[in-house]
Amino acid sequence: MNIYATEKSQQYLAKVKSFIDEQILPIEAELLAQNRRINHSSDWTQWQLLPQIETLKSQAKAKGLWNLFLPDATLGQGLTCVEYAPLAEEMGRSILAPEIFNCNAPDTGNMEVLYHFGNEQQQNQWLNPLLAGDIRSVFAMTEPDVASSDATNMQATIIEDGDDVIVNGRKWWSTGLGHPNSNVMIFMGLSHPDAPKHQRHSMVLVPVNTPGVNITRMLTAYGDFDAPYGHGEMELINVRVPKSNVIMGLGKGFEIAQGRLGPGRIHHCMRAIGAAERALALAIERGLSRVAFGQPIIKLGGNLERIAQARMSIEQARLLTLNAAWKIDNLGVKHAMTDISAIKVVVPNMLTQVVDMAIQLYGGAGMNHDSPLAGFATMARSLRLADGPDEVHMAMVSRLELAKYK
Amino acid sequence: MNIYATEKSQQYLAKVKSFIDEQILPIEAELLAQNRRINHSSDWTQWQLLPQIETLKSQAKAKGLWNLFLPDATLGQGLTCVEYAPLAEEMGRSILAPEIFNCNAPDTGNMEVLYHFGNEQQQNQWLNPLLAGDIRSVFAMTEPDVASSDATNMQATIIEDGDDVIVNGRKWWSTGLGHPNSNVMIFMGLSHPDAPKHQRHSMVLVPVNTPGVNITRMLTAYGDFDAPYGHGEMELINVRVPKSNVIMGLGKGFEIAQGRLGPGRIHHCMRAIGAAERALALAIERGLSRVAFGQPIIKLGGNLERIAQARMSIEQARLLTLNAAWKIDNLGVKHAMTDISAIKVVVPNMLTQVVDMAIQLYGGAGMNHDSPLAGFATMARSLRLADGPDEVHMAMVSRLELAKYK
Amino acid sequence: MNIYATEKSQQYLAKVKSFIDEQILPIEAELLAQNRRINHSSDWTQWQLLPQIETLKSQAKAKGLWNLFLPDATLGQGLTCVEYAPLAEEMGRSILAPEIFNCNAPDTGNMEVLYHFGNEQQQNQWLNPLLAGDIRSVFAMTEPDVASSDATNMQATIIEDGDDVIVNGRKWWSTGLGHPNSNVMIFMGLSHPDAPKHQRHSMVLVPVNTPGVNITRMLTAYGDFDAPYGHGEMELINVRVPKSNVIMGLGKGFEIAQGRLGPGRIHHCMRAIGAAERALALAIERGLSRVAFGQPIIKLGGNLERIAQARMSIEQARLLTLNAAWKIDNLGVKHAMTDISAIKVVVPNMLTQVVDMAIQLYGGAGMNHDSPLAGFATMARSLRLADGPDEVHMAMVSRLELAKYK
Amino acid sequence: MNIYATEKSQQYLAKVKSFIDEQILPIEAELLAQNRRINHSSDWTQWQLLPQIETLKSQAKAKGLWNLFLPDATLGQGLTCVEYAPLAEEMGRSILAPEIFNCNAPDTGNMEVLYHFGNEQQQNQWLNPLLAGDIRSVFAMTEPDVASSDATNMQATIIEDGDDVIVNGRKWWSTGLGHPNSNVMIFMGLSHPDAPKHQRHSMVLVPVNTPGVNITRMLTAYGDFDAPYGHGEMELINVRVPKSNVIMGLGKGFEIAQGRLGPGRIHHCMRAIGAAERALALAIERGLSRVAFGQPIIKLGGNLERIAQARMSIEQARLLTLNAAWKIDNLGVKHAMTDISAIKVVVPNMLTQVVDMAIQLYGGAGMNHDSPLAGFATMARSLRLADGPDEVHMAMVSRLELAKYK
Repeated sequence: MNIYATEKSQQYLAKVKSFIDEQILPIEAELLAQNRRINHSSDWTQWQLLPQIETLKSQAKAKGLWNLFLPDATLGQGLTCVEYAPLAEEMGRSILAPEIFNCNAPDTGNMEVLYHFGNEQQQNQWLNPLLAGDIRSVFAMTEPDVASSDATNMQATIIEDGDDVIVNGRKWWSTGLGHPNSNVMIFMGLSHPDAPKHQRHSMVLVPVNTPGVNITRMLTAYGDFDAPYGHGEMELINVRVPKSNVIMGLGKGFEIAQGRLGPGRIHHCMRAIGAAERALALAIERGLSRVAFGQPIIKLGGNLERIAQARMSIEQARLLTLNAAWKIDNLGVKHAMTDISAIKVVVPNMLTQVVDMAIQLYGGAGMNHDSPLAGFATMARSLRLADGPDEVHMAMVSRLELAKYK
Repeated sequence: MNIYATEKSQQYLAKVKSFIDEQILPIEAELLAQNRRINHSSDWTQWQLLPQIETLKSQAKAKGLWNLFLPDATLGQGLTCVEYAPLAEEMGRSILAPEIFNCNAPDTGNMEVLYHFGNEQQQNQWLNPLLAGDIRSVFAMTEPDVASSDATNMQATIIEDGDDVIVNGRKWWSTGLGHPNSNVMIFMGLSHPDAPKHQRHSMVLVPVNTPGVNITRMLTAYGDFDAPYGHGEMELINVRVPKSNVIMGLGKGFEIAQGRLGPGRIHHCMRAIGAAERALALAIERGLSRVAFGQPIIKLGGNLERIAQARMSIEQARLLTLNAAWKIDNLGVKHAMTDISAIKVVVPNMLTQVVDMAIQLYGGAGMNHDSPLAGFATMARSLRLADGPDEVHMAMVSRLELAKYK
Repeated sequence: MNIYATEKSQQYLAKVKSFIDEQILPIEAELLAQNRRINHSSDWTQWQLLPQIETLKSQAKAKGLWNLFLPDATLGQGLTCVEYAPLAEEMGRSILAPEIFNCNAPDTGNMEVLYHFGNEQQQNQWLNPLLAGDIRSVFAMTEPDVASSDATNMQATIIEDGDDVIVNGRKWWSTGLGHPNSNVMIFMGLSHPDAPKHQRHSMVLVPVNTPGVNITRMLTAYGDFDAPYGHGEMELINVRVPKSNVIMGLGKGFEIAQGRLGPGRIHHCMRAIGAAERALALAIERGLSRVAFGQPIIKLGGNLERIAQARMSIEQARLLTLNAAWKIDNLGVKHAMTDISAIKVVVPNMLTQVVDMAIQLYGGAGMNHDSPLAGFATMARSLRLADGPDEVHMAMVSRLELAKYK
Repeated sequence: MNIYATEKSQQYLAKVKSFIDEQILPIEAELLAQNRRINHSSDWTQWQLLPQIETLKSQAKAKGLWNLFLPDATLGQGLTCVEYAPLAEEMGRSILAPEIFNCNAPDTGNMEVLYHFGNEQQQNQWLNPLLAGDIRSVFAMTEPDVASSDATNMQATIIEDGDDVIVNGRKWWSTGLGHPNSNVMIFMGLSHPDAPKHQRHSMVLVPVNTPGVNITRMLTAYGDFDAPYGHGEMELINVRVPKSNVIMGLGKGFEIAQGRLGPGRIHHCMRAIGAAERALALAIERGLSRVAFGQPIIKLGGNLERIAQARMSIEQARLLTLNAAWKIDNLGVKHAMTDISAIKVVVPNMLTQVVDMAIQLYGGAGMNHDSPLAGFATMARSLRLADGPDEVHMAMVSRLELAKYK
């Protein structure tokens, strides 16, 4: 019983849920295994798309289950953040689902940047094909040589040169860079190193195939390449793109980042709650069906208490996330800073705990890819670092808390 | 920003808050110290009421800030559980406040029993003076010789004898038994030991001064008597009361208990959230004002992260509690079983953590009664046992979770 | 099986253990209840000693189970820190035991100060009667108005004035100040505020009855006065004592404090391990003997896992403490700084957890003083602040760890 | 300062340490990267050995740093469990090191089985080449279709048939099965299903290339194949081996398992402590060298407290492990049951926490294989399941604890 949900949201939820239950979950294991067979290599240039996934995307699109994340009635389905929340949670139950509904990171975040901050030309060139699912995109922010949690450490540069800008720098953990349809990256760099702290950075759209973009390798996250998306490392050497590719104008990078990260973080959290629900369900099903020492293993030791703890943690994390979504919808991102940082800490840590519990009940089958659990474990671990580590978000929460006392 | 709050609730909240801020908090420390001086003795028969508190009660009553907990527009203020939540939270900030608004345990729970299940005569005799704040009451359920978390262990008996019932048994942790105005107890015992499990018990109203009611002593909770209420131990030996004192009829004890404990538990949780907010505020104020090693101590070590953790835990606990309140209001107690058990585990544990953190920042002043923290610590500890220990509630949550899989 | 123990230690252990088992534990509950009856009042000037305890002290002394803590073969029993460890642990099982063997804080620490740093006159006047158990003593360090974890915050002063020193300042949590035999305090204050950081303080012996020593009150620790010792608050106003009462000379306060706190902390930890063993035993006995939902309650939910966790935590804490003792004996206190800070964090937190678990199994009986658990809970809580809060000791451990990388 | 270490142990430690520091660590990253390039494929039949590792093995062997685990002065170096402990810890710092000293799982455990329980023929055929490092071996116990933590669930069978036994069953997580030199497995199965519980199982040596041994696949552990060893899944269908391959005789499987698992578990724990030390060192080095918000990141938020917590946890885990080793040496495995189960819970959980902390400090570089941290994370996660999940070992600890009360 979701007390925030609107009727509209409930209708979409029913459709998304039956699509996932009927068309994705029955073939999920086979698709994931097939993906590992086809795309197992570190030679990412050979990675391929699975045709069944492309078919599922077409079907979802045909049913209007497409771009649900975008709060625009024409380009998306006009759902608020609160209305989208249960849909994103539902999608989070399967690692495959978000892409099938064109609601996967980092493309959603990039589409939101283009939607809110892109000019018409940028939207025509990149937003439209992204909304159509024809191309994939990259967000190039994190750098290997500095502590990227402090944006002022950034070393990459975006320098004006006539009608162009020249881009230089190393980036990594650029998700989607290995995708066969990877087409464009939103690249963040220093354009005005001497400006006030929040006006130093710019974001520019760089086509992936621009000369000077050198992709070094795809990184494994705890052994997985997350093919066919991949997490790329690259070096840009004197890459020249027209100044019209700069988003909102030079010096606006920090502002855009703030705007992008709020919704991006909440979408991650919604999906993570769905993953936690799936992990809990798997734990219970396994615990009820396997027997040891004369009992279903779920009845042994502290297992039932851990089930209860998982249920209580998930409920709390969901309510916190819905509350943040409500604030974004009704008060704006700027008034939801504490809330967004809070869910960014709470939800991935909750997922970590729930998945860990499920894996202990699964035994060996929780470590390989026969179940979704190992994938969820990696996702949970990554989320505690991605878009700012827990520690940075806790610092934000405490800073805003102390500000009440001045 | 409480997204559940109604305008009506917000209006009461403003009044309750200013009453507490202006009339209670400024003299709280003095009243508590005075109470310890006057009522310091284990000889509870000498305990006295503080006249200032009686005065504050009259003022609250005159302002209509009275019986806010009761969802009846005539006898109370007609507030729903969701509407009452922020008021109860506000009251939880001071250990003295709930009584001043006639919203303190165990009287609220007992009034609810009489309101929902008492007959007209019982309501006239006891509900009305309780609503007026003229008498205090006791709920006698827990027994010293058995594990009381399992109601089937209960040893006390309530045996029909003509127009009377004969009551026997030992009870302890009977809060309010030492109060100068303690007048009546709701006593639970076995009346039909051979009936089905949930029809064995009865509840009967026993005036405290009935012959055969032997009060053994008042118990300390971690050294405190919680005077002038007290937690009593007593033995009832062949106590005879008219059968008309039985609530709802013999055999209805379990049913009444279920009805009583839901709201009772959520009220405890709401107040505990207020206590946590106060503890967090005290921690921050102390941490900002004391200096060590060249810095305000709040900036040392992991203190700021603990502030953030406290803020995140409180928010989650509050939302979980509000959601449970919403279910009670809209779906009924029976459909909020998981939620009520969940908050009964989550909230007192959250309070334990937040208060513990605050005490570490306070140092020695967190251990004695110069601050409210030691009192909150005892309250948090007691709440993890009262109305069922954490473990029993976790068992309930997991049982209801597994039931989804049958 | 304690792999560190010597034969000598084992012999003492057997005697101490049988003394406690046969002469203390059987009457412990009665003595504690009697103490609460006699010494229940905040008027500490009326506190009295229990004659049975004085008798037990005589018996322990007669058996040579006396001053076991002191590593001197004549004045004590010549036991090393490692040899004393299992004895102190054994004493920790009962709150009454340490005093009976003349091994209670703060007297042991004060005797060590006098033994190591006192001159002959000071030893004659105070060490000898303390070793005899004829007087009790106080260590006056913590101040109410500053963060005392940073010694440079200290406000009390010790100013030379001819052959005397003049002492001024407020102190609190001065344990033992309320004891009928309280005779002398070791008072720490600033004598050279402009000297280098570690040469500013002095320690001086101040007889409790010196004019100008004003005892304000005894403090409760979570509601308990810990009578007949008490934790005092006092103000010293122009208190004049002869300069010969200064220990080691003016400016040596910090040095003495370092020497005192090492053994003091490890003795606290040893006793706390004994308390944890007692709490675990009580938990198991209760859990085996009470039944709920058809089973001994120890078999319900996660209780058995918590028993295992308690056993594992206690073993680790004990080994860490023994290892610290070994370093103190063999390498000296200065080479055991990390270890002493580590046990000061680990052991009280372990005790907190074990006692909390036991209380959950005990239910209401864990909250009042019918069992030793509430007392152990208060002791655990106090120990996380006394002699430096956890946070200060963690800072020490990390500082020494990072020093390896320079 | 390891108070248990003998001079002999210290001498070996110095040699092992300098071998690792000088010959392994400088090329570790390159070797691991090379291994991932060569052995990246799921087609394990193509996996190859790295010649540099073979060379390092020869050098270690030549220096007498070989088979240090085996408590036999001729075949090994005659080191006790306590003496071996610091060496194994040292090896645990690098994932590559154990193999180089011929001290890697599962071969050490298998060698111990053959050493303690094998007959002369079995020792000649398999123990000697294993000790020489010429072949690798497999321990086939865990099954995919049942909860293997309860050995009575085992479905595989070993049936007498004249001078042979016929082996049937499915096994998985059979580490080493994919190794190019994989030669023999110790296979556990039911031979006497109707015998008393501990006499039903047998262990038999099955050459890997025996007809009927069908290797299905190598399993990933969180995405990694752990090539060139691998974790195999296989089915044995009517595999016939001579009865002389049975170890100790039919029905002795459980007894052998008990004997094998004790040392096997403690070796895992020793190595895990070394891994934790390495992770802590990496965390500190990274935290000191990277800067954010104007400070080395190790000074931000609660990082220093986490460093302290890591140091305190490692010390405790090490002492617990050394104490277990001392009991194995001096009292025998049977008297170290609690201790072995305790370290099996404590150490991998400690490693999990320490590595997690290090990864948060590393950021993205903690997730891919540029540092050893992701490998340690997988190792820690696996160890919480391998050789019995945490829950089974906690059940053992609590069972033995309660047995003291009978």
